[in-house]
Amino acid sequence: MYGTGQKRVLKLVPYSEALKKLQALHVNLGYETVSLERAVGRVSAEDVTSKLDIPQTDRSLVDGYALKSEDTLNASLENPVTLKVVGKLYPSSPPTECSILTKQTVYVTCGAPIPRGADSVIKIENTVLRDGEIEIRHVIKPGENVAQAGEDIRMGSLVLKKGEVLRPQDVGFLAGIGVKTVKVFKKPRVAVIATGDELFELSKLNSTGIADNYALIVSSLISELGGIAIRMGIVPDELSEIRGKINEALEEADIIVTIGGCSVGEKDLVPDAIDSFGKPGIIVHGIRVKPGKVTGFGVIKGKPVVMLPGLIASTIAGFYLILAPLVSLYRGSIEGNGFPIINAKMNRDLEADNSSLWRFITVHVRRVNSIFFAEPILGGASSLSRFIKSNGFILLPPKKALEKGEEVNVTMFSNEEFNRFICEGAVTWR
Amino acid sequence: MYGTGQKRVLKLVPYSEALKKLQALHVNLGYETVSLERAVGRVSAEDVTSKLDIPQTDRSLVDGYALKSEDTLNASLENPVTLKVVGKLYPSSPPTECSILTKQTVYVTCGAPIPRGADSVIKIENTVLRDGEIEIRHVIKPGENVAQAGEDIRMGSLVLKKGEVLRPQDVGFLAGIGVKTVKVFKKPRVAVIATGDELFELSKLNSTGIADNYALIVSSLISELGGIAIRMGIVPDELSEIRGKINEALEEADIIVTIGGCSVGEKDLVPDAIDSFGKPGIIVHGIRVKPGKVTGFGVIKGKPVVMLPGLIASTIAGFYLILAPLVSLYRGSIEGNGFPIINAKMNRDLEADNSSLWRFITVHVRRVNSIFFAEPILGGASSLSRFIKSNGFILLPPKKALEKGEEVNVTMFSNEEFNRFICEGAVTWR
Repeated sequence: MYGTGQKRVLKLVPYSEALKKLQALHVNLGYETVSLERAVGRVSAEDVTSKLDIPQTDRSLVDGYALKSEDTLNASLENPVTLKVVGKLYPSSPPTECSILTKQTVYVTCGAPIPRGADSVIKIENTVLRDGEIEIRHVIKPGENVAQAGEDIRMGSLVLKKGEVLRPQDVGFLAGIGVKTVKVFKKPRVAVIATGDELFELSKLNSTGIADNYALIVSSLISELGGIAIRMGIVPDELSEIRGKINEALEEADIIVTIGGCSVGEKDLVPDAIDSFGKPGIIVHGIRVKPGKVTGFGVIKGKPVVMLPGLIASTIAGFYLILAPLVSLYRGSIEGNGFPIINAKMNRDLEADNSSLWRFITVHVRRVNSIFFAEPILGGASSLSRFIKSNGFILLPPKKALEKGEEVNVTMFSNEEFNRFICEGAVTWR
Repeated sequence: MYGTGQKRVLKLVPYSEALKKLQALHVNLGYETVSLERAVGRVSAEDVTSKLDIPQTDRSLVDGYALKSEDTLNASLENPVTLKVVGKLYPSSPPTECSILTKQTVYVTCGAPIPRGADSVIKIENTVLRDGEIEIRHVIKPGENVAQAGEDIRMGSLVLKKGEVLRPQDVGFLAGIGVKTVKVFKKPRVAVIATGDELFELSKLNSTGIADNYALIVSSLISELGGIAIRMGIVPDELSEIRGKINEALEEADIIVTIGGCSVGEKDLVPDAIDSFGKPGIIVHGIRVKPGKVTGFGVIKGKPVVMLPGLIASTIAGFYLILAPLVSLYRGSIEGNGFPIINAKMNRDLEADNSSLWRFITVHVRRVNSIFFAEPILGGASSLSRFIKSNGFILLPPKKALEKGEEVNVTMFSNEEFNRFICEGAVTWR
């Protein structure tokens, strides 16, 4: 017989197995069309090909004079060639506005179309202008200082792949090829439910209460992953209340995440609440990783419900190991959990422990002499300070020790980390 | 005598000198107080110290029974110790709710306060409950499974430094220590003016026109740096119009950036427009880097005006070299230009050229076998495709060649790049 209140037994599965079961839950949330101005950070839902050659016509790369290169074949310091200036072209000029014959030239500013008959441009600083003629004292090669039509992008070439996240330059690029809107995956809506009699909403917090601050962290991280976090507030440790809140969340969200109440104590009612909705209910409850061991997930009405543990070290581990990959998957990204991974050297030894579980180890990465060094930041299961001292984590197999200097893969906690990173090599103002 | 239209001569300064002059322009934009919910990504304008011990009271780290460790001194498999269960405590229970005497115990759930008299907790799974008593078969150490008050954070300790960017975990942490709002630097407002007779706004673009897409890229990058981009639209190559638009921008923004019209051709009127406002006018026009050589900046009415060149390779170089550090500076960040810097090995040789200028070289970084490899992406000055093929840049001294395998510092174009990065080691769904 077990002690008071232990109602469930965890069935720990390997992390890789949990991921496989997670992937099976994926539902395509559909698409929407957004203007380019709103497309940065969204995930393309289609392959995009260019409908234009870029540049559309031959253009000058410099301020100078467009000419026939053959006219300069014999040009030299001793024997300058003279060309008559017969016009001017600007970037805004129509490409067909003028043309040149032999021994003629047209002034072109940078970006201007090349007149018909010309094949190259001499830089303005290499010419001398006198009485409407320029003197040229060296040979100009065909194509010199000219961007050829289609040189940058050929009509029909693939410029954006389905599943790629749009960056500022992609959006600018699409604008440059005449695209005005782009089809993207809908953002997953993720409802965040904090559970626990002990919690207070931030605004109602008194001096001895415990804030629902983990919900705040989880919500911020969801936003960074490209999801829409919906804060559902706090629910006490009552089966019917948890059930009611999940029901509410099912109306609003594509994914539901609960924080707390998923261990095996008598007040751990989230698993019961999930199972009370009927099959399939809980799919995984327990992963072979610590902290984060009691993380789990199930399905209600076709929507995944992720249970994150309530102690911060476990909440964070469960977030990165299970929720983050799920949100990325729903987001349509072809990549993984959406956070940067870098390679770092351990700055000290880390002993193995005798557990049969993988270890989720928080680290602080610094960059010294262009090398990333990772320092393990250990601490209690309820230590929040550990997470402000860390900026990433490593996942270590059971019984594995690490030696000083050994290389590890560090997943950074968020892209924001680079804003707090001492980035040696960067301009600094201190 | 120079050719038609060359009105100015660039006075190239070393990049380091340009940066020094840029730094001298800094004005503190002041502070604002924001709720924690809106604080992620903002820069703290004050040192924050904890007003509480965290945890505020001793708390259980597990589901189990709180007890006096001395009662278990002689406990063993053969000689179990029996304790009487006299109460239950939950995370929501007031810390002073109950106390124990010798040979007594209280059921505590994970996170519950420790009753007076107890100093340790035994895990529920290591006990046997029978008739209101538990049997214990091993020695429990003082403090076992207990988070001590103040163990995580001592009252008065520094938890956030002025100039640090707030991350999700920082915000959660501040909530945990009872903070509800945080004082942050005001975001710099950056007005973006596209110049050029040839440009069309995206919405008005016809099939042969040229979009003001560089303004779109620059605006997105400003937002990513934590600034507020204000799109001022397009202005033709007319002195009075450029002047009028700058005047308008001065009303709205802390920093002004122009794109195009800052070279030495006859339609390059932005420098004249800036100087027309009087002293100090243009401060730097020309940096010893290519592309980006004609980048410059000046000051009007105490506000910096950055001139980015109009050919995309130069626009981008000028953005990263001059505008990005300036925006970061105004943002209050103690760090540099706000973009991640990583170390990578060249995946092929790169020849030196014979110029006396530094080179801004775009690269594509991939991660293979945990090592970052950088491939130089070369291309014409007007090649936009080069920027969608790249994800970062290196800055190379004059005459410097690079060998395959040589290590270089790569500044990533944006944090977003990691969303497009093939992050080997990440969970992938393909």
